[in-house]
Amino acid sequence: MNIAIIGLGNIGGSFALAIKTNIPDADIYAIDIDAAVIEKAKKQHLIKDGSQDFKDIIPQADLIIFAVYPKLLVQLVKDYTPYLKEGCIITDVTGVKTSIIGEVEPLLPDHTDFVFGHPMAGRENRGLKFSSREVFIGANYLITPTPRNKEKNIDFLKNFVKELEFGNISVITPDFHDEVIGFTSQLAHVIAISLINSDDAARNTKKYTGDSYRDLTRITNINEKLWPELFMMNKQHLLNHIDNFQTQLDKLYAAIQSDDVETMERMMLESTKRYKDLHDIED
Amino acid sequence: MNIAIIGLGNIGGSFALAIKTNIPDADIYAIDIDAAVIEKAKKQHLIKDGSQDFKDIIPQADLIIFAVYPKLLVQLVKDYTPYLKEGCIITDVTGVKTSIIGEVEPLLPDHTDFVFGHPMAGRENRGLKFSSREVFIGANYLITPTPRNKEKNIDFLKNFVKELEFGNISVITPDFHDEVIGFTSQLAHVIAISLINSDDAARNTKKYTGDSYRDLTRITNINEKLWPELFMMNKQHLLNHIDNFQTQLDKLYAAIQSDDVETMERMMLESTKRYKDLHDIED
Repeated sequence: MNIAIIGLGNIGGSFALAIKTNIPDADIYAIDIDAAVIEKAKKQHLIKDGSQDFKDIIPQADLIIFAVYPKLLVQLVKDYTPYLKEGCIITDVTGVKTSIIGEVEPLLPDHTDFVFGHPMAGRENRGLKFSSREVFIGANYLITPTPRNKEKNIDFLKNFVKELEFGNISVITPDFHDEVIGFTSQLAHVIAISLINSDDAARNTKKYTGDSYRDLTRITNINEKLWPELFMMNKQHLLNHIDNFQTQLDKLYAAIQSDDVETMERMMLESTKRYKDLHDIED
Repeated sequence: MNIAIIGLGNIGGSFALAIKTNIPDADIYAIDIDAAVIEKAKKQHLIKDGSQDFKDIIPQADLIIFAVYPKLLVQLVKDYTPYLKEGCIITDVTGVKTSIIGEVEPLLPDHTDFVFGHPMAGRENRGLKFSSREVFIGANYLITPTPRNKEKNIDFLKNFVKELEFGNISVITPDFHDEVIGFTSQLAHVIAISLINSDDAARNTKKYTGDSYRDLTRITNINEKLWPELFMMNKQHLLNHIDNFQTQLDKLYAAIQSDDVETMERMMLESTKRYKDLHDIED
């Protein structure tokens, strides 16, 4: 099987590493705008071949994995369509689904199948050098089929990512995907950015931090070209989640302000219960 | 030197472990309301002796480390004062300083010196069994002297915690301590609780989480008896920090709502810069 990875950044590179290890008989090709990255990947025998010109790669690809920003993904699908191999399967790693599916599906030739997916194994560092096979191991993987997808191709993607050692593989609707990701990923980023930016820069805070602050701000090293795109593509869900968070924050604020120990205790018992549920800890 | 640890929970136990390893000639005694905990610590040779009755321990103690909740600390100091050894040094681990100092100092006999301290190495799990020497290694330690403290006793505490392998040891005013801890620790807890409590419990969110959500909610397994006390003791600083966080959150919310990419990018570049500063990463 010929696999083409589009974009050899952190995630694309991690796919290459995971495929090389777990599916050794696959031939991995890559397209990247950076010739040096292609050269490096070839030297490391991470890919069989690569190019900056998709016409060298796409016509032979049985599976195409797009690991690029959402806007670029739409543009590239437009460029690639005349050159896609008959029956090829396409997938992606985009963090928001409904809008990208709406833009991409009308562009596709009938003989191809784009099964949209989302590996929940993002990392804050960019570029091939931060790629790792390990980040996929046990990570959650979300597949968001559409009526256009063939059952066998959805199954193919499921088995493919299982071979790459992903953990929980969930098949969900694009809208549910966006709703839940708006909460677990996007809201978390909104909060972390707001927290670190509210620091008094003159205070030299780092001398006084414990693990809490470092944990809550780990994701603030954020790709400022990618995330505004994701936020805008999922605006309604995200704003709704911020509103719900705001309700809880206001409640806790009022309890602190009025020395309302009972409400604080109740909220903390609730958060502890939810923590234990999240981590499968028995009482 | 006879050291008395008051409260053999997670932090008190970690002190015992760290002292045993790094200052082997010290004799460690402990007081705990739970006889079984004292027995266990004696069996493990973690302490030389222990008791539920402070009169067995306190009169011989050269150094007393209070590792108990703030309200209990005040009560115990009242009980102990007639029995304190001439010239003994006392310290604590309380997460908020100004109010506890105000309550405790008037109770102290002239011949004793209470040097207030704060090891920034809290853990979400309670009890002796979760104690560890390692959590102190490289952790920040804050000492908040008052005009009543003797210079040599402040130096003693500094050297003592350096021997226990704490990292950055800062000497700061009680009010600055409360201001900065209100930000790095208390605000972080307020945010984490609000985040996890805003989850839709029917969604089975854990199947769809990445590291972001798990990082931002790690501290939600919170001691509901301790933290309301801490929040109320530091109310003004904490509410002020929540207000500043709120300002940033509102700004980002408005930017998302109005597709204001420029503001989002600027906030993300700022958070990335602050992340790098926090972690001493060069550009």
